[in-house]
Amino acid sequence: MYQFIDNGTVTTVQGFKAAGIFCGIKRKKKDLALIYSEVPCSAAGTFTINKVKAAPLLISKKVIQNKKPVKAVLVNSGNANACTGKEGEQDAKTSQKYLAQKLGILPSEVLVSSTGVIGKRLPMDTLLSGIDKIVPKLSEEGGHDAAEAIMTTDKAMKSFAVKVCLGTKEIMIGAICKGSGMIMPNMATMLGFITTDVKAEPEVLQKLLKEAVQNSFNKISVDGETSTNDMVTIMANGLSGKKLTEGTKDYKQFLQALEELCKKMAKAIVADGEGATKLVTINVKGAKTQKDADLVGKAIANSALVKTAIYGQDANWGRIMSAAGMSGASINPALVSISFNDLPVVMPDYKIVLDEEKALEILSLKEFEINIDLRSGKKSSTWWTCDFTEEYIKINADYRT
Amino acid sequence: MYQFIDNGTVTTVQGFKAAGIFCGIKRKKKDLALIYSEVPCSAAGTFTINKVKAAPLLISKKVIQNKKPVKAVLVNSGNANACTGKEGEQDAKTSQKYLAQKLGILPSEVLVSSTGVIGKRLPMDTLLSGIDKIVPKLSEEGGHDAAEAIMTTDKAMKSFAVKVCLGTKEIMIGAICKGSGMIMPNMATMLGFITTDVKAEPEVLQKLLKEAVQNSFNKISVDGETSTNDMVTIMANGLSGKKLTEGTKDYKQFLQALEELCKKMAKAIVADGEGATKLVTINVKGAKTQKDADLVGKAIANSALVKTAIYGQDANWGRIMSAAGMSGASINPALVSISFNDLPVVMPDYKIVLDEEKALEILSLKEFEINIDLRSGKKSSTWWTCDFTEEYIKINADYRT
Repeated sequence: MYQFIDNGTVTTVQGFKAAGIFCGIKRKKKDLALIYSEVPCSAAGTFTINKVKAAPLLISKKVIQNKKPVKAVLVNSGNANACTGKEGEQDAKTSQKYLAQKLGILPSEVLVSSTGVIGKRLPMDTLLSGIDKIVPKLSEEGGHDAAEAIMTTDKAMKSFAVKVCLGTKEIMIGAICKGSGMIMPNMATMLGFITTDVKAEPEVLQKLLKEAVQNSFNKISVDGETSTNDMVTIMANGLSGKKLTEGTKDYKQFLQALEELCKKMAKAIVADGEGATKLVTINVKGAKTQKDADLVGKAIANSALVKTAIYGQDANWGRIMSAAGMSGASINPALVSISFNDLPVVMPDYKIVLDEEKALEILSLKEFEINIDLRSGKKSSTWWTCDFTEEYIKINADYRT
Repeated sequence: MYQFIDNGTVTTVQGFKAAGIFCGIKRKKKDLALIYSEVPCSAAGTFTINKVKAAPLLISKKVIQNKKPVKAVLVNSGNANACTGKEGEQDAKTSQKYLAQKLGILPSEVLVSSTGVIGKRLPMDTLLSGIDKIVPKLSEEGGHDAAEAIMTTDKAMKSFAVKVCLGTKEIMIGAICKGSGMIMPNMATMLGFITTDVKAEPEVLQKLLKEAVQNSFNKISVDGETSTNDMVTIMANGLSGKKLTEGTKDYKQFLQALEELCKKMAKAIVADGEGATKLVTINVKGAKTQKDADLVGKAIANSALVKTAIYGQDANWGRIMSAAGMSGASINPALVSISFNDLPVVMPDYKIVLDEEKALEILSLKEFEINIDLRSGKKSSTWWTCDFTEEYIKINADYRT
């Protein structure tokens, strides 16, 4: 049993404070966020698989791997601190230390994260004086400010919370995330920060997060790019008194709610994909293996031709079929059927049953489903993608990430 | 020794005739091409690796696999005859037979090929009456008409010929091709038809073609899409009297010229990429393995963010580095250097030496090079890509392939 909370965010969870301010890394908009728990938290995290990893990721990965308590996450936008070498790592460490000192905690209790332009050193004076300013702003209402401060090309702030009933106890999970471009199905490819008042060992938390990410952030595509800075972290302060142990009913219920929360975030990122006007769910079924199901979903979600057809509201099932064919999955195209929502478009043996008028009705919606049945087995996979528009080009030709 | 011929085409080679006409598959433009050799030719071909293969490909593949003499290639544009099932195969066979009868040759001597919209049956009456019309038009000057008739979203006609000195003999290789969207590094992803007056067994020709395609058509990207209809064929009529045998000096010289011809075609396709305004060569060197070199080149050539940065004339080396990092190749980003033409941009240890003004001079050119040195080994790889513009989106949102 779980229920999403209106206007929920990381500070909807008891014991968490947050803040988001403008400190001067960007020109005008909020660019520094802080999430803080006075109570020590268990923490877990997933990180980009890009070989080029930003400095703050290297630092935060170590914090997570320590499996020691964590109390704060510091995030700046406007500068990725990626491809900045040893100096960049030093900058990340300096900000980690400086914040720890300000909060009266250990540097090893601080996670750091950055997003923005690659290959530029962080303006350290600006950042450190930003830390001076943000600490006094921490509040139990600060979640939305933090969510705003981690945005880059995002148009919408992304902030959620979900209440979960575990036996007689109610626990809460809150989250903020950012992501709009450089979104590709493989690890988060965005930033996401999750808070909860459940009690769980870091190993348990890591397992939960990994599984939730697999069916959410790892199943979305805006442009097939994997960024250098992706990370998703979860901090559990245990204040609800409810302890999670693997294999229990509570564990499963928590996982279900966490996964739904991650899906909510993942879909919000795709819907806010750079230049996107539509959110499309791709349901693949009838695959021989899980890998085949995933390959087909990923190929369709990533296809520039499918995504431009969605933009053009063109019932172009041929491009969907072609993307499936080039996915690397073992498919027999003559067995495949495709539908838009409940409207069959092509049946096995390439029997075209497309009603162009009815298809246009569906394709003109802001959200719809592409269903593809491979009729070769029992495995399935769900993906989310958006359309590909002139606006994406414009944003990325103008903006230096 | 080889030399490109001004305005060269398939009919620049002795013994080949061609024609290109409008028959009514498209609304207005030329849509039917024919290449013909009275003398029986050896033939070879390479075909798409997409699991969804168009009907004419299945037919033409059999013709090539027969290793019997070939005399004609029939190509229509405006309809891909893909995802059309058994009926589509029957249509392809019918057109093959009908043309054979008109020319007084065997159906097994006819290659067929189609390009255009997927999932629609060929208008057979239109096509067959087109065949009636095109046969009398065959001429030794028809190469350019044929090149025009195979275009779809192409803006430029693509037609070439190269003269090769083999010992005391001069032989000729001619070619036409089309391709603009659905271009991705893996097999041709376009149509290409090559003629030559050299004499060679089908096996020898197949080996030559495979090798030439590997370093040309397999190294280009417009949008990361592999089409259902790609094929490249070569027909050798032997009229020069020069016979090619594997391992000889002549063989190597012919291969070199064939490869340069294929590169010329491949680059022409990228330069005419849908919406493209720039042609960019990507030279990867210092890779540990050939696979690593290819992975890095392919990732950069395919990256939507690199391609939009090129469009925006933005010296965004961070996106190039990020694409290399997510390529799957084993790289150490701290060793990598990147330059635009001869202008160093970033040196090992992320030492940024970028002169923005000089970089802009290069990036505003219509053609330039991105050079990336991985400093991890001795393998290298060259790729070609184009920029990614609003025009690409517009073309593909409007056009039903």
